[in-house]
Amino acid sequence: MAYSFDELINTRQSCRSYSDKPVEKEKLEELVKAVRLTPSACNSQPWKLFVVTGEKARFVKDALQLMGRNKFTEDCPAFTVFVEKPATLKAGIAEMVSSQKFAQLDVGAAVSYYTLKATDLGLQTCILGWFDEKKLSNALGLSKSEKVRLVVATGYAVDGYELREKVRKDVSEFVDFIG
Amino acid sequence: MAYSFDELINTRQSCRSYSDKPVEKEKLEELVKAVRLTPSACNSQPWKLFVVTGEKARFVKDALQLMGRNKFTEDCPAFTVFVEKPATLKAGIAEMVSSQKFAQLDVGAAVSYYTLKATDLGLQTCILGWFDEKKLSNALGLSKSEKVRLVVATGYAVDGYELREKVRKDVSEFVDFIG
Repeated sequence: MAYSFDELINTRQSCRSYSDKPVEKEKLEELVKAVRLTPSACNSQPWKLFVVTGEKARFVKDALQLMGRNKFTEDCPAFTVFVEKPATLKAGIAEMVSSQKFAQLDVGAAVSYYTLKATDLGLQTCILGWFDEKKLSNALGLSKSEKVRLVVATGYAVDGYELREKVRKDVSEFVDFIG
Repeated sequence: MAYSFDELINTRQSCRSYSDKPVEKEKLEELVKAVRLTPSACNSQPWKLFVVTGEKARFVKDALQLMGRNKFTEDCPAFTVFVEKPATLKAGIAEMVSSQKFAQLDVGAAVSYYTLKATDLGLQTCILGWFDEKKLSNALGLSKSEKVRLVVATGYAVDGYELREKVRKDVSEFVDFIG
């Protein structure tokens, strides 16, 4: 039984308590196939993903431990590192704007596709923006023009992990209808 | 009958040929309710949306006409302008990073929630990053710290508008599995 979109966006939440159950390879492949369909400026697809699992994930976990934060990631079986790459825009547009003007928006979109597809597959995620960027860049052999933007912890929640109510601004606080 | 997530991401595409059928107010409200649930860094929700419809949309259409681009927007009945606002991050994080470090990623995520919900409602969209930013900022009375990031044309496609095949890199071109 497929989830509706409303169910997905209401169910997706940051999970900070993972079981040690590994994520099936097929599911990881489905996640990146969803990311593949993300729209981007001039279809530039300015991203590179590293899906790191099992014992190999040690370096990601180490890079995530900053000032006592993110300790919960020790138990998480999989991490996807989202790297922003130099974007190639269409001629005419590229000449008028900085080529990276849209790339960060595009990576934000790609992470949404990933986390919503994960929810669709019964997985839990936590989007992490707080890490030792240099450590990750070095371990992954990134060039200077490639920036680690976000890391998404991916796995199964511990038994009994509850869906929290979403705390958000009211629509009236961030939307103006004109017309 | 609800769409599955895979159906949504395969069906969403940039529409450049709109019928003049207005978008129902209830649907516009559903779109912004979906945006409301978008995750953001420290739950900062660093966005402001202007949903502009009907004759009032003249200033948006004018701002979109640049060097002969975006002419198709003349027929589009609704536009949502996504503005990035100063983000308020948690103490401890705000002190360590520029407060806007994550805001652009967050806006990119919000636009995804919007366009996927639009697809879910049978609407078509086109994400536009190319416009006269000053014209839009002035018309909307934005402050210097508020940046127009994207405009999303929203409406119904003309009859017979076809679903195009998606052109994307192969997964192997942008994903490394490590583990």
